[in-house]
Amino acid sequence: SLEPEKISDGHDVVEAAKSIYMVSDGTGWTAEHSVNAALGQFEHCLVDRGCAVNTHLFSGIEDLEQLMEIVKQAAKEGAMLVYTLADPSMAESAKKACEIWGIPFTDILGPITEAIASHLGVSPSGLPRGAPGRNVPLSEEYFRRIEAIEFTIKQDDGALPQNLKKADIVLVGVSRTGKTPLSIYLAQKGYKVANVPIVMGVDLPKSLFEVDPEKVFGLTINPLVLQTIRKARAKSLGFSEATRSNYSEMDHVREELEFARSIFAQNPVWPVTEVTGKAIEETAAVILRLYHDRKNRCSMPRIAKRY
Amino acid sequence: SLEPEKISDGHDVVEAAKSIYMVSDGTGWTAEHSVNAALGQFEHCLVDRGCAVNTHLFSGIEDLEQLMEIVKQAAKEGAMLVYTLADPSMAESAKKACEIWGIPFTDILGPITEAIASHLGVSPSGLPRGAPGRNVPLSEEYFRRIEAIEFTIKQDDGALPQNLKKADIVLVGVSRTGKTPLSIYLAQKGYKVANVPIVMGVDLPKSLFEVDPEKVFGLTINPLVLQTIRKARAKSLGFSEATRSNYSEMDHVREELEFARSIFAQNPVWPVTEVTGKAIEETAAVILRLYHDRKNRCSMPRIAKRY
Ligand SMILES: Nc1ncnc2c1ncn2[C@@H]1O[C@H](COP(=O)(O)O)[C@@H](O)[C@H]1O
Ligand SMILES: Nc1ncnc2c1ncn2[C@@H]1O[C@H](COP(=O)(O)O)[C@@H](O)[C@H]1O
Ligand SMILES: [Mg+2]
Ligand SMILES: [Mg+2]
Repeated sequence: SLEPEKISDGHDVVEAAKSIYMVSDGTGWTAEHSVNAALGQFEHCLVDRGCAVNTHLFSGIEDLEQLMEIVKQAAKEGAMLVYTLADPSMAESAKKACEIWGIPFTDILGPITEAIASHLGVSPSGLPRGAPGRNVPLSEEYFRRIEAIEFTIKQDDGALPQNLKKADIVLVGVSRTGKTPLSIYLAQKGYKVANVPIVMGVDLPKSLFEVDPEKVFGLTINPLVLQTIRKARAKSLGFSEATRSNYSEMDHVREELEFARSIFAQNPVWPVTEVTGKAIEETAAVILRLYHDRKNRCSMPRIAKRY
Repeated sequence: SLEPEKISDGHDVVEAAKSIYMVSDGTGWTAEHSVNAALGQFEHCLVDRGCAVNTHLFSGIEDLEQLMEIVKQAAKEGAMLVYTLADPSMAESAKKACEIWGIPFTDILGPITEAIASHLGVSPSGLPRGAPGRNVPLSEEYFRRIEAIEFTIKQDDGALPQNLKKADIVLVGVSRTGKTPLSIYLAQKGYKVANVPIVMGVDLPKSLFEVDPEKVFGLTINPLVLQTIRKARAKSLGFSEATRSNYSEMDHVREELEFARSIFAQNPVWPVTEVTGKAIEETAAVILRLYHDRKNRCSMPRIAKRY
């Protein structure tokens, strides 16, 4: 029997959905990221919206009045509250108000900040990132990231093969293995990335075989999944029937993946990463782990950073 | 008097730095993001490396043996441990081991997951994102994001002005206001972004004035900061002395910003965002808040999402 909240009448569904309010004195991206990861633990009921969830992100909340208005609204809506508030008195107010109103809540920033404070033996500033007087320093790292993004955009899809030597990471794979979004993801982390497509019957640029092979990474994918993705792509690009079938026909897909495999076999130093079933950020994690292991050759694989 | 750990001998400095170990059964990006935000609270002592910190990210940790090896290493190094472990028995083991070894620790995933579980009345799966059988569904959202990234790359720096009407967001500003990295940041969130440079003496594309002005956003910046950025840029691009001075001379910078201001004044519907002192993700938060407010016109500014 259908429960009332499962009836797919738009209005009822919205009413049945549970809300999560996310409040930050900054951008809110940290709260959003944590909530996203946690929601991954409820995928079994989210897929069919059996436990529908709506998130509401409130960013730049720096004064008590705004904060209290949001808490009241959360109480009205039966929402829970997740917050990152650097000012301890704001965080305390959020906590108290939630307790008074009976709102479930989680402080994302407080516990980790306290733990780091006692680890370092230093008190936290308590200043939100946008506080007056705080200025983002135009650090080297900042410029390096922007340069990486601009480099990576220009290099996309095999453009400027003469620049492969300037890349930190070179991705190689057939069309629709996610080279472009992966390149961009890595670029935002500060790596200069180039990607080179493998296309049946097209020679790879000579420069690919002249760069340090330790920075080249192959991507591979299950043929059935690739075909599904290519069909969607061909449709959205409005390919003609003929082009479409050559691009997404199973025989062609298999042949092209076989061609890629033979290239990878001839270049055994290139690690080959399977992207099937992986989100972009998961493939990025795999590649960066390999990349840093090769650089550091330390016993326990890790990515180290200095602050 | 110099304390021994402040002596800028490379070796001593490294030894004096405090370590933060981040462990995840997934990519580790959630732990990294939270630690980064929390470290923002210690900028006052991080700037001069008065409290130097090294982070170490261990991703894809799915078995107890690896976990225990990392905890032992953390104990040896006097590190603290931050973890996201979906399997409750792994999280419990991390906690116990830290207590036994006297390691400060923070569980990033557990508290928020528990709070959401009781809010939804649903038990978490306890499955790490990479668990066998779990497969990233090739969801509409997934394809939409990739399309947004590919669109945005092609549109960069005023390319294909005939496509402005297809963009969700159009950014307008002089060179080095961060249009490109901002566009890419927004694209990764699923928005199709186009950016159009304002260059002194160059006409803006006609199509810019034909699109819905509610999706156009102006960027502005402090002239002194812009000059600093442009000088760095000109140097890194190896501009000739003549081009360089025209690009980064103060008079020219001021004139160009004035030209931008006059264009913005003629288009009062375009909100103008000040980027000075803001990180890319901060400007992104400001623009997305404006964007969603305009779409929803609801009383409390927010970004809402359905899961
Ligand atoms: N660079 C920073 N300096 C100070 N606080 C920060 C910094 N980055 C993030 N935060 C704080 O960390 C929390 C999460 O930030 P956000 O992801 O922007 O919402 C907020 O309370 C911010 O104020
Ligand atoms: N889609 C997902 N499904 C299940 N668990 C997830 C998902 N995304 C993230 N997690 C979990 O959330 C934590 C943080 O993920 P990560 O940012 O990949 O380190 C890890 O314990 C992951 O296993
Ligand atoms: Mg591509
Ligand atoms: Mg640009």
